[in-house]
Amino acid sequence: MTQQKTVSATDQSRARLSERSARMPASPIRKLAPYATAAKERGITIYGLNIGQPDVPTPPEFLAAVRSFDQPVLAYGHSQGQADLLAGFSRYYKQVGLDIPPEQIQVTTGGSEAILFALMAVCNPGDEVIVFEPYYTNYTGFAITAGVKLVPLATDPQTGYHLPPAKAIEAKITNRTKAIFICSPNNPTGTVLTREEINTIVGLAGKHNLFVLSDEVYREFCYEGSHTSIMEFPEIAEGAILLDSISKRYSACGARIGCLVSRNPEIMDAVLRMGQARLCSPTIEQIAAARAMDLGKDYYRELTAEYRKRRDTVIEHFNKIPGCSCRKPSGAFYFMGGFPVDDIEDFCRWLLTDFSYENQTVMMAPGPGFYATPGIGNNEARIAYVLETDKLIRAMTALGHGLERYKTSH
Amino acid sequence: MTQQKTVSATDQSRARLSERSARMPASPIRKLAPYATAAKERGITIYGLNIGQPDVPTPPEFLAAVRSFDQPVLAYGHSQGQADLLAGFSRYYKQVGLDIPPEQIQVTTGGSEAILFALMAVCNPGDEVIVFEPYYTNYTGFAITAGVKLVPLATDPQTGYHLPPAKAIEAKITNRTKAIFICSPNNPTGTVLTREEINTIVGLAGKHNLFVLSDEVYREFCYEGSHTSIMEFPEIAEGAILLDSISKRYSACGARIGCLVSRNPEIMDAVLRMGQARLCSPTIEQIAAARAMDLGKDYYRELTAEYRKRRDTVIEHFNKIPGCSCRKPSGAFYFMGGFPVDDIEDFCRWLLTDFSYENQTVMMAPGPGFYATPGIGNNEARIAYVLETDKLIRAMTALGHGLERYKTSH
Repeated sequence: MTQQKTVSATDQSRARLSERSARMPASPIRKLAPYATAAKERGITIYGLNIGQPDVPTPPEFLAAVRSFDQPVLAYGHSQGQADLLAGFSRYYKQVGLDIPPEQIQVTTGGSEAILFALMAVCNPGDEVIVFEPYYTNYTGFAITAGVKLVPLATDPQTGYHLPPAKAIEAKITNRTKAIFICSPNNPTGTVLTREEINTIVGLAGKHNLFVLSDEVYREFCYEGSHTSIMEFPEIAEGAILLDSISKRYSACGARIGCLVSRNPEIMDAVLRMGQARLCSPTIEQIAAARAMDLGKDYYRELTAEYRKRRDTVIEHFNKIPGCSCRKPSGAFYFMGGFPVDDIEDFCRWLLTDFSYENQTVMMAPGPGFYATPGIGNNEARIAYVLETDKLIRAMTALGHGLERYKTSH
Repeated sequence: MTQQKTVSATDQSRARLSERSARMPASPIRKLAPYATAAKERGITIYGLNIGQPDVPTPPEFLAAVRSFDQPVLAYGHSQGQADLLAGFSRYYKQVGLDIPPEQIQVTTGGSEAILFALMAVCNPGDEVIVFEPYYTNYTGFAITAGVKLVPLATDPQTGYHLPPAKAIEAKITNRTKAIFICSPNNPTGTVLTREEINTIVGLAGKHNLFVLSDEVYREFCYEGSHTSIMEFPEIAEGAILLDSISKRYSACGARIGCLVSRNPEIMDAVLRMGQARLCSPTIEQIAAARAMDLGKDYYRELTAEYRKRRDTVIEHFNKIPGCSCRKPSGAFYFMGGFPVDDIEDFCRWLLTDFSYENQTVMMAPGPGFYATPGIGNNEARIAYVLETDKLIRAMTALGHGLERYKTSH
């Protein structure tokens, strides 16, 4: 429940912040940044495996559009998104086999805003959304903003973080449950849900009149098998909400362009009104993103090949570290690595504050930040393989030495 | 109260949207857009006085920075904002007489996000914030998102929309009140609050332990007297939150760059965590905005002179229309015009659907959208004087003919 105990203003010696301010978590991905900055100032090279910031170049089509922006006034755009970009998204979806006309698309300021809009659209304060742990940590921040209770259900590293059986999911459904939130390919586990798994979710949603929020920003990052979209299931046409972003596929995280897709006109009307409140997404990046939408299959094939190579390299070297283990994930560019430590937060911080190997160290995102259930994830860290393979090998070498030294000193 | 009656999921024939989705208002500034589009398709020239979209060129320094963006990867920026931009904002504030170091600044995605972050930081769901009607309509959307109850207190056209007496404001304070929200120079009225008025607000906030949220995005648009910032009052240092944006002063509405300023480290810590959840504001525009921060006094002097001329022109011609009246406002680039009609929504729509004069018409933002109290504002419209003076004169001529014809036919 998000109902808060309220502090009476007259009880205060001075104006007090909200309780939800206190509950808003620091990003587990970003909170170690000050230690990294200090380490860099000591001259240490840091392999940044903490954040999903790809190093591959942003497509020239995108950057050329930015550089050729020639309007005299950088004006507001449309609240739904620029017509060119809506048409571009529609063409892009056609290319991946989805028939989505522009009127079913709301441009958002990053995938982040798509998450917030979706939660706002389907939930009243206090409503519940089922998520599978570990999950993308920022869902928590948006749930706090929207006053939504995320109800976590743990997945198991031994099954490769695949979904629990339908009965276990069904047991979490209450009369406050409004949606099930899935993410495939998954951040942070790299797991790609099978068509059968998504079919199970669709079945449960239909049976219990729930929405399904589907984060598919890593659609192209699929190394085995293929990606299944929530939009492929006509039986949940009105209840499916697709959350998307160009950040990863175009290596354009700083553009802040994403979208929300739904075939339900009521949802589109609601999110448009939310869009009107914040006026528009950044205009220049919308123009540029529209130009990138026609990148062909070759672009994605090369992208996937590069990340598959990185995945194979990093997993091979990670599993060589004594005590470390991870099943090879099939997608995205993350994995949750298991470590022989009891306090991964301490280990991740120690790597930045007290350790270097040949003047190098590694920055990772501690596991507990990806769980809502307290006490889980203390022996896991999320590793983003967003560097070239030779750097990944050096990073794993440094990590191995770090773990060895940490274990002898703790 | 924002507490909602909840619909049990099992009662539904299908998944239902949230009740707050229904409450999220369509923008009164933007909702007439489809009628305008249709009128344009009929070949009619529309003077767009509905939206605060300046027509003055974006400064060349800003655009040159966009065009020379030369990084190979459009990467995430820092959640607080890029160091260059934080330093730039700090220099800008020094130029306007405020000593604000970078650590007291949080870059936001437009002034819009600054409003949301401020409401989230100080209010729990159900808390109250006092606002003065008419007010910038989008406050309502963010209040719904944050579950905050805006408590409106009407200002009077006869006093030039200046604040009511302290006693009237104090009468609105309850034990759920967390903040008073002011905006000067004001959108939509153009009123510039006097130092004495702001001093009164600061006194009330101190006495009742309230925060003050101060929207100062029109700081430079002051035609008589001078602007007073909430940051000039040391007695409310911990309770003052300044909301700002580059959109208007740099004619860069599509950049989506604003900031939130506070001298309270707890507030800065809370909004940074909100910033981490949405990762960052657009990177390219942050770089470009940093370059614009050193525009000197000449830039602002010319800007102010241009808008002062427009204000004088539009007010003179507006007040010539029989039955129309407005006291000349001192700032921003809006005024609330009084009309001899009973249903301004109908009149504004009719101007687009049924009227043209010499193939021209006028688009305005109907008054009721700027009031929370039902039934007020039906004879007012917000007019944004964001066009050149000759266009403003033609717009007022068309408006006068429109009003005459409307009154004979209704």
